[in-house]
Amino acid sequence: MNVLIVHAHNEPRSFNTAMKSLAVEVLREQGHEVVVSDLYAQKFNPVASGKDFRIRADSEYLVYALEQRYSNSSGTFADDIQVELERVKWADLIIFNFPIYWFGMPAIMKGWLDRVFVSGYCYDGKHIYDRGGLKGKTAMLAFSLGEQRHMFGPGAVHGELESLLLPIHRGILAYVGLKVLPPFVAYHVPYISESERHDYLDQYRQQLRTLHQCPALEFPSLDEFDDSLRPKAAL
Amino acid sequence: MNVLIVHAHNEPRSFNTAMKSLAVEVLREQGHEVVVSDLYAQKFNPVASGKDFRIRADSEYLVYALEQRYSNSSGTFADDIQVELERVKWADLIIFNFPIYWFGMPAIMKGWLDRVFVSGYCYDGKHIYDRGGLKGKTAMLAFSLGEQRHMFGPGAVHGELESLLLPIHRGILAYVGLKVLPPFVAYHVPYISESERHDYLDQYRQQLRTLHQCPALEFPSLDEFDDSLRPKAAL
Repeated sequence: MNVLIVHAHNEPRSFNTAMKSLAVEVLREQGHEVVVSDLYAQKFNPVASGKDFRIRADSEYLVYALEQRYSNSSGTFADDIQVELERVKWADLIIFNFPIYWFGMPAIMKGWLDRVFVSGYCYDGKHIYDRGGLKGKTAMLAFSLGEQRHMFGPGAVHGELESLLLPIHRGILAYVGLKVLPPFVAYHVPYISESERHDYLDQYRQQLRTLHQCPALEFPSLDEFDDSLRPKAAL
Repeated sequence: MNVLIVHAHNEPRSFNTAMKSLAVEVLREQGHEVVVSDLYAQKFNPVASGKDFRIRADSEYLVYALEQRYSNSSGTFADDIQVELERVKWADLIIFNFPIYWFGMPAIMKGWLDRVFVSGYCYDGKHIYDRGGLKGKTAMLAFSLGEQRHMFGPGAVHGELESLLLPIHRGILAYVGLKVLPPFVAYHVPYISESERHDYLDQYRQQLRTLHQCPALEFPSLDEFDDSLRPKAAL
């Protein structure tokens, strides 16, 4: 299996970076090919702009998704996008490894998605969810956060973690057709002991070794919707 | 009232930019002071890194939130952060004006939040939600998106818009103590007619003129939780 790990942490010696390194080690041990897009190390530019296209369909007025479609068909993305897009095409599994910032991804990773999950290849108007461009591939989040486990759940202070992850799990990963595995979550990371960190790494090692047994999250199928994407049941 | 509009669009002649310009005009007509942080025009750097702190509490190992707290107490943020943080302190109302990218903000705006909503001032461990550092101020999202209105709602193809906005509304804005007004939403923007765009701008003008009558969204109060942020009701 080909595995792409997209990693974003601004401290190379962080626990979060150790999670990334562990994943590389465990997946290679299992015979998989692993490539890492280390966004901080690459100084990846997360800002979507007109410079992302070597040739513009419309050089006067920028509609970002339309230029993505044009560059996808003409092969004229900026080099840094093309490199990452080729990695996406190559990968069977994409792991997003990051610290939670504001119940989402750090901007450098959000911008990787804004720029690399291009319209025309990863999705278009009729090719989303289980008809998305990345159908057949799998994705998974692996993240650390500062909050404690008891702060999430029904009635908990931050509500349910699944609800906070919905825009990523459903609105990005499932949207482009990826099968979405349950995330690996390390809570309270800046404040826990060395032995608790080791326990988390052991848990992550176990999760990585048994990915193939892990049931995917469930999302609606486009079969339930008509051509205008209205629910068939409501017709 | 002092109004900060944080704006992020990569096409200066876009409909989304017209929404921002309309808000400036309408709010000034009403006698408010308005400042715009135009993130693309400013070439705002959205990448949180060690360079964000002129002096480091720990120059060897970066824990971003801890350095924010240190720079907040010592007044040593990088200049671009300090400028934006002063605008946040000055504002009574913050409007986030952006196109939806992947059911969230473009990376350049997400990174504004990562870097400017600093720990130590906007929140800390015990000062979140209705005890957050920005309590007394108000926020509102104003966004455009490519999808159509019928694609959102219970049973709709993308689910409920409110659910997709939860990490922003609750996990960012309410988290720091902001009162959150209902968003202004313009659907299907790249594909609608000039007259539909005018209708949207008329609706937005009306919404801006009646902001003071608009009931805020509701979120839990910390009064419902104990000192460890566990629900009191469960004790």
